[in-house]
Amino acid sequence: MAKPWATFGVDLHLEPSGPGVRRGLTDALREAVRSGRLAPGTRLPSSRSLAADLGIARNTVADAYADLVAEGWLTARQGSGTRVAEGAVPQPPQRPAPARRAPGRPAHSLLPGVPDLASFPRAEWLKAARRALAAAPNDVLGYGDPRGRAELRTALAGYLARARGVRTDPDRIVVCNGFARGLKLLAEVLHARGLRTLAVESYGLDAHWDLVHRTGLATEPLPHDEHGPRVDALGEGGAVLLNPTHQFPLGGALPPGRRAAVVEWARRTGGLILEDDYDGEFRYDRQPVGALQDLDPDHVVYLGTASKSLAPGLRLGWMVLPESLVPEVLDHGGARSVGVLDQLTLAEFLTSGAYDRHVRAARLRYRRRRDALVTALAARAPHVHVTGIAAGLHAVLRLPPGTEQAVVQAAAWQNLAVTGLAHYRHPHTTTSPVDALVVGYGTPSDHTWPTTLEALCRALP
Amino acid sequence: MAKPWATFGVDLHLEPSGPGVRRGLTDALREAVRSGRLAPGTRLPSSRSLAADLGIARNTVADAYADLVAEGWLTARQGSGTRVAEGAVPQPPQRPAPARRAPGRPAHSLLPGVPDLASFPRAEWLKAARRALAAAPNDVLGYGDPRGRAELRTALAGYLARARGVRTDPDRIVVCNGFARGLKLLAEVLHARGLRTLAVESYGLDAHWDLVHRTGLATEPLPHDEHGPRVDALGEGGAVLLNPTHQFPLGGALPPGRRAAVVEWARRTGGLILEDDYDGEFRYDRQPVGALQDLDPDHVVYLGTASKSLAPGLRLGWMVLPESLVPEVLDHGGARSVGVLDQLTLAEFLTSGAYDRHVRAARLRYRRRRDALVTALAARAPHVHVTGIAAGLHAVLRLPPGTEQAVVQAAAWQNLAVTGLAHYRHPHTTTSPVDALVVGYGTPSDHTWPTTLEALCRALP
Repeated sequence: MAKPWATFGVDLHLEPSGPGVRRGLTDALREAVRSGRLAPGTRLPSSRSLAADLGIARNTVADAYADLVAEGWLTARQGSGTRVAEGAVPQPPQRPAPARRAPGRPAHSLLPGVPDLASFPRAEWLKAARRALAAAPNDVLGYGDPRGRAELRTALAGYLARARGVRTDPDRIVVCNGFARGLKLLAEVLHARGLRTLAVESYGLDAHWDLVHRTGLATEPLPHDEHGPRVDALGEGGAVLLNPTHQFPLGGALPPGRRAAVVEWARRTGGLILEDDYDGEFRYDRQPVGALQDLDPDHVVYLGTASKSLAPGLRLGWMVLPESLVPEVLDHGGARSVGVLDQLTLAEFLTSGAYDRHVRAARLRYRRRRDALVTALAARAPHVHVTGIAAGLHAVLRLPPGTEQAVVQAAAWQNLAVTGLAHYRHPHTTTSPVDALVVGYGTPSDHTWPTTLEALCRALP
Repeated sequence: MAKPWATFGVDLHLEPSGPGVRRGLTDALREAVRSGRLAPGTRLPSSRSLAADLGIARNTVADAYADLVAEGWLTARQGSGTRVAEGAVPQPPQRPAPARRAPGRPAHSLLPGVPDLASFPRAEWLKAARRALAAAPNDVLGYGDPRGRAELRTALAGYLARARGVRTDPDRIVVCNGFARGLKLLAEVLHARGLRTLAVESYGLDAHWDLVHRTGLATEPLPHDEHGPRVDALGEGGAVLLNPTHQFPLGGALPPGRRAAVVEWARRTGGLILEDDYDGEFRYDRQPVGALQDLDPDHVVYLGTASKSLAPGLRLGWMVLPESLVPEVLDHGGARSVGVLDQLTLAEFLTSGAYDRHVRAARLRYRRRRDALVTALAARAPHVHVTGIAAGLHAVLRLPPGTEQAVVQAAAWQNLAVTGLAHYRHPHTTTSPVDALVVGYGTPSDHTWPTTLEALCRALP
């Protein structure tokens, strides 16, 4: 079988299996560039075709490429694919890389998607766990309700109404293992209903798209303009996945007119809106934007998560479903997969007010970081325009045209992991790309934040 | 559309959705029998066809039927389907049912599958959680390794080698949300590989079969004889799900000759064995039977769970995979859905010895229950023969031919929930059924065990 990468004279020496595949691929490609076997400017195969060829996951290849882009060995530009960076051979072959460029985790990270884990309220969480377990009857420890514990669903119904404007009763809430598991369940249900395509936004996470694809659904991005996704382009019926409150990664909120329009679309055509409200707790300029679900609880599935407000490691998420969807979701495995102790602890956290206290403190901390980011950029990088700053844990830094990849590479030389906007672009997106950096300012701990910000400033034009 | 149940003059008044469907269906059928609209002896539609007709899950119908069988309104016999019980109208129409037959949970339960939840080591578990969280670095709270936390996989590798004879290193272990989630993942992987049928044993849990069916695989039972499943009937390649250590529900262990034969089959034909070791910790007569996986770690997936040894509510399970399967399983969602705090707590529980202490105490307690069961039956029900090896949390009571349904019904009148063997029979099984009761003696708490046993004895012939 012809292997496209073999044409580069690269022997990947890859074990076809095992969790070291990504590292193995990254190391092999790095060594191929370092040794000159892959010359500067060489175009690499698409992640899809290399993955198919090696019999590994496309994500693994994409991640390995992203690692190497972040390290400066490769460049990725819309329209020209992934190439070996010009001047990517930072030292002669065989000479060991200096420590600051050693393979492995960069010293600083502004990769979005993870909150400041150092601020997880460990002591409060353990206290809540102790109270919850002390109060729980024995049957809590059995298989239980497939929707999740009633205590948690009741607490969530109250919290979501108060904090996010979600209209629900506990019976329509299904607790799930984070957003990803909820999305997978919903994609399975939609596939079983006969749907074959899920409309998505033109920018998002390929991990989510891949997860949808594995259920047999294709994803097709909506066109977008400066106001967000063009919901008027939705067809008859079907389903759409949206971030109405805070688009990831672009950072905008869906304007009121489009919120109304998409709900009107769902009503008119029997469509379904999947509302991914991953960081709705964090809004800095005014009252949080309420959930879209409030406009029509019968046509919107609201998906929330504790991954940004507390920690991804908890694997706690929740879906608020139109009543007609509940039995189908339960048929496809429902929840019944979320550990009951975490469920009870979160319920106690919510009802005791500990959750609100934690979110308030986190909001203040992230807001200060965002302010520090804006101030530092105004002083140090006047060519960079910060957008999408009113909410969430990340900002988008608009860069001068044609500089995105160079900035990602420059950041890598500063030992800073950060991604460009191109990384989040759906492959079918046709709108012209813009150069930008997606900066997850929630990710560093408080004590690494100043040096991380300094590394970012040094990397910017 | 013709509705078969409409021919019975039954108006189910069913909401087509919502978690109350099972209760709604149970209530509607009960009322139809009570009022005489469904006459004694009337054969009900199969759960499959009624489910299709009502647009609800087959499980929901099967569960409603099982509830009504347990309550004595219906009878279910192999070959003659589900019928309205003769003499099932215990009081004139309109008179309210006496409290002891009121809908709802029976006072006593010997339904298998749940350990004694009252003995869950709450204080020890919280202590372990505190120690684990205190020792954990911050990045534990992030998304982490899709196989699960390294601490837990390392602890499991050691424990499984020591207690179950499993041969593995931590890299081939994937932590999952209980057995069911692991089975679903594996079924998805097998389906993606092109498999369309999974061989299973002739008796098992329909919840597991249904879960496999939803991934697109059919299940086909192996013929069985008095020694267990006829593994010589396996075709070329494919995969088989087995309980080699303690068959559920029949209670036997796969004889050594068949253990060797099924492994030889897997090697010869490239087949895969899924070993469901749900209660391997509990063996009372001698040393535990080691896992089949030990015979060939490259052709056996070992699946274990904390559901019987600790509590189902934890939703903690683990798969030990042949190395070649790891990437595929991770591609299909891997673990990354199990809360990290429970993972770390279980790791601490295992390494501190608390798990072994708990299992030893539980083994002693369950063994005493089993002895009490055997003693009581010898004295009180000489026609009933206890079968199955001395292991696990359930026993099989062989009944005089033709009495199974009457005994289940008699138990319901004693306010005791218990299932007959017929409940666990795969619909394609051709071997003649035997009359037996499946008694989950692990389920009651210590203080309800004596009255539960007394209720059982009163129900037996």
